[in-house]
Amino acid sequence: MVMKPMKALLDLEAGMRIVMDAARPIERTEQVTLLEAVGRVLAEEVCASMDVPPFARAAMDGYAVRAEDTFGAGNFSPRILELIEVIHAGESARLSVRPAACIQVATGAPMPDGADAVVMVEDTELDRTNVMVYKPVYPQQHASPMGEDIKSGSCVLQRGMRLDPSKIGVLAALGFQKVTVYQKPAVAVIPSGNEILMPGEALSPGRIYDINSYTLSALISENGGLPQIFPIMKDTLEAAISTIREALTYDLIVLSGGSSVGERDMMVEAVERMGEIKFHGIAVKPGKPTLCGVVEGHLLIGMPGYPTSCLTNGYGILAPALRKMSRLGERALASLKAPMVRRYTSTIGRHQYLPVRLDGGEVVPVFKESGAITSMADAEGYIEIPANVDLLEKGEVVEVLLF
Amino acid sequence: MVMKPMKALLDLEAGMRIVMDAARPIERTEQVTLLEAVGRVLAEEVCASMDVPPFARAAMDGYAVRAEDTFGAGNFSPRILELIEVIHAGESARLSVRPAACIQVATGAPMPDGADAVVMVEDTELDRTNVMVYKPVYPQQHASPMGEDIKSGSCVLQRGMRLDPSKIGVLAALGFQKVTVYQKPAVAVIPSGNEILMPGEALSPGRIYDINSYTLSALISENGGLPQIFPIMKDTLEAAISTIREALTYDLIVLSGGSSVGERDMMVEAVERMGEIKFHGIAVKPGKPTLCGVVEGHLLIGMPGYPTSCLTNGYGILAPALRKMSRLGERALASLKAPMVRRYTSTIGRHQYLPVRLDGGEVVPVFKESGAITSMADAEGYIEIPANVDLLEKGEVVEVLLF
Repeated sequence: MVMKPMKALLDLEAGMRIVMDAARPIERTEQVTLLEAVGRVLAEEVCASMDVPPFARAAMDGYAVRAEDTFGAGNFSPRILELIEVIHAGESARLSVRPAACIQVATGAPMPDGADAVVMVEDTELDRTNVMVYKPVYPQQHASPMGEDIKSGSCVLQRGMRLDPSKIGVLAALGFQKVTVYQKPAVAVIPSGNEILMPGEALSPGRIYDINSYTLSALISENGGLPQIFPIMKDTLEAAISTIREALTYDLIVLSGGSSVGERDMMVEAVERMGEIKFHGIAVKPGKPTLCGVVEGHLLIGMPGYPTSCLTNGYGILAPALRKMSRLGERALASLKAPMVRRYTSTIGRHQYLPVRLDGGEVVPVFKESGAITSMADAEGYIEIPANVDLLEKGEVVEVLLF
Repeated sequence: MVMKPMKALLDLEAGMRIVMDAARPIERTEQVTLLEAVGRVLAEEVCASMDVPPFARAAMDGYAVRAEDTFGAGNFSPRILELIEVIHAGESARLSVRPAACIQVATGAPMPDGADAVVMVEDTELDRTNVMVYKPVYPQQHASPMGEDIKSGSCVLQRGMRLDPSKIGVLAALGFQKVTVYQKPAVAVIPSGNEILMPGEALSPGRIYDINSYTLSALISENGGLPQIFPIMKDTLEAAISTIREALTYDLIVLSGGSSVGERDMMVEAVERMGEIKFHGIAVKPGKPTLCGVVEGHLLIGMPGYPTSCLTNGYGILAPALRKMSRLGERALASLKAPMVRRYTSTIGRHQYLPVRLDGGEVVPVFKESGAITSMADAEGYIEIPANVDLLEKGEVVEVLLF
């Protein structure tokens, strides 16, 4: 084994441009039911083939009237209209509203012919078949015209929109049962490292359980991907080549593990032989030994082997790439601003992801070391320290991105 | 049909206290695999039955040494050590490191007996079996002790934690394949209203498609619940009673529709007969005709029939209740602050949810009317206007909660 130190590091911005450029939005689509559609990305333009509502309707419980019949009504001078019919929601009036008459309507009921407004029940009194109207209405008051919500022919949802509850409501309003969405990117998660075992296997000397495949899969699920964990890749060039070849049926290939320079060289060589290395080594902390390549058009990201490095780069590099592929767009991580509990020194020249928790309104760094998954699990979020900043003062206000 | 106007409105805070008090966290648990566990809530305390790492290990690629053998090393005065063995990750050394000797180790490899530090490969030169060390190390440098990440016996994850990628990583590190989480609350979504049809049915005069069951189900899924849409409830007291009885196998009952006072009275009567009305009518806009009851210990929420009213109250009232039941805790909706594009007047005495979108960095109200689902679908989020505020000035900075 010849151990070669990594070459000069690429800065994060340049690295991200390369990754984002190689990450291509998925074009494949599938049909899902409205109940399955929440959080998915619409793959068709949705144009209305009907008006919503499909008829003019009462917007209040009350009496459908000819507005002019109510003009001049007041608390001491009610206009008196004859109640000629009572209809409920879902029913249509048989009669038309003629002058000095009215029809009782429930909210949502179709407006009877002849009526152009609804007097609210609160502004009336009923005496057998006489309705005393105490307040005038103007034409169209408390009546929703046909197509007020959605006009037939209008295109209400655009391709690429994320389907949130309101947009699913629009589909329901138009009578859709299914909708065409983009497929989720399929992601091959390939663990490697002779020292790792899958959870559930019996631990033997020198071995540890695979952490990265699980943290990455969880992150992939959270960011719109479909992870598939591969068997642990053997530490040989042949194994790397045949595994990557098998993974070419996936949209994105994520290699996890291979933390040591030796293992990494083997991955680098496999990618070099099969495609192109875009970069190897990036100026972030932790997470320096990150690899980016393209094999037959497929983006391949080699994550650092250390669990914290792997996961912070998961948030920083993998998730944005995946969100471009899945078309979910940038993740709006909830964030808050709070002061540092103590001075913190960072490494100049490397963009740092610092896991933190909040204690009494102050930001407490919880980074233990890159090899410790508890560095992340004890954190509530992270702060980013740009490459050109080497010191955060005690009390300095920073932005915490919450997991 | 006798139409009764609603009684005095409860303020939002008092209403929320009632709803939140009646919403009880789910106690039932289930086992899921680590891959299914992301976003779920842990129902057990997780204590380590092993150290992580389970052995002292090299934290760098390099040479395991006795630190004292490197003292005094410098660029012009290397210490020369004999390379007696080469081990890779996953292997254990057969030999011990004796004075003036070293063993080549990869990151993650167990520390050989006798060694107490690792010299980084960058600080050395190899000449056949002689390793020139150009920089001294102190004891424990670049070596991670056994249990550094997690100590055997320590309890690392607590019941009630939401399983994010890092916490799933902790479970993987400890060799877990499955984990016990709280079951998701099962939610009965019961549409009503004689005027509604399910999407896919042929539209007939006076009828509209059900929107609320779909917006609510999407919202329920997004907030940790398992929605089940019931058949459309008939508009009779008997139907209401038998449907609610059937829904008592669910954790939460959500009635949607019944926008008119008449339909609502029927629901109120059914709930009064079977259990207790907690409130009927709340000082929010839109969403006033909201009903809260408890039937045999089950929280029941009657949502307003109008789609926008229903969905804003879904975000404002239903989602917090569900997140208490599912133990997900308050939703940290991403938010941003921006100025109002124009003056906006609100209703004093009612807490308003105003759907808005952002245009050129300014907040644009998009509220059309409560009956229009496009009031919400055209919005990117909403602002809240407290009951005691009746005016937002043009340029006033408000907080937008993003969907």
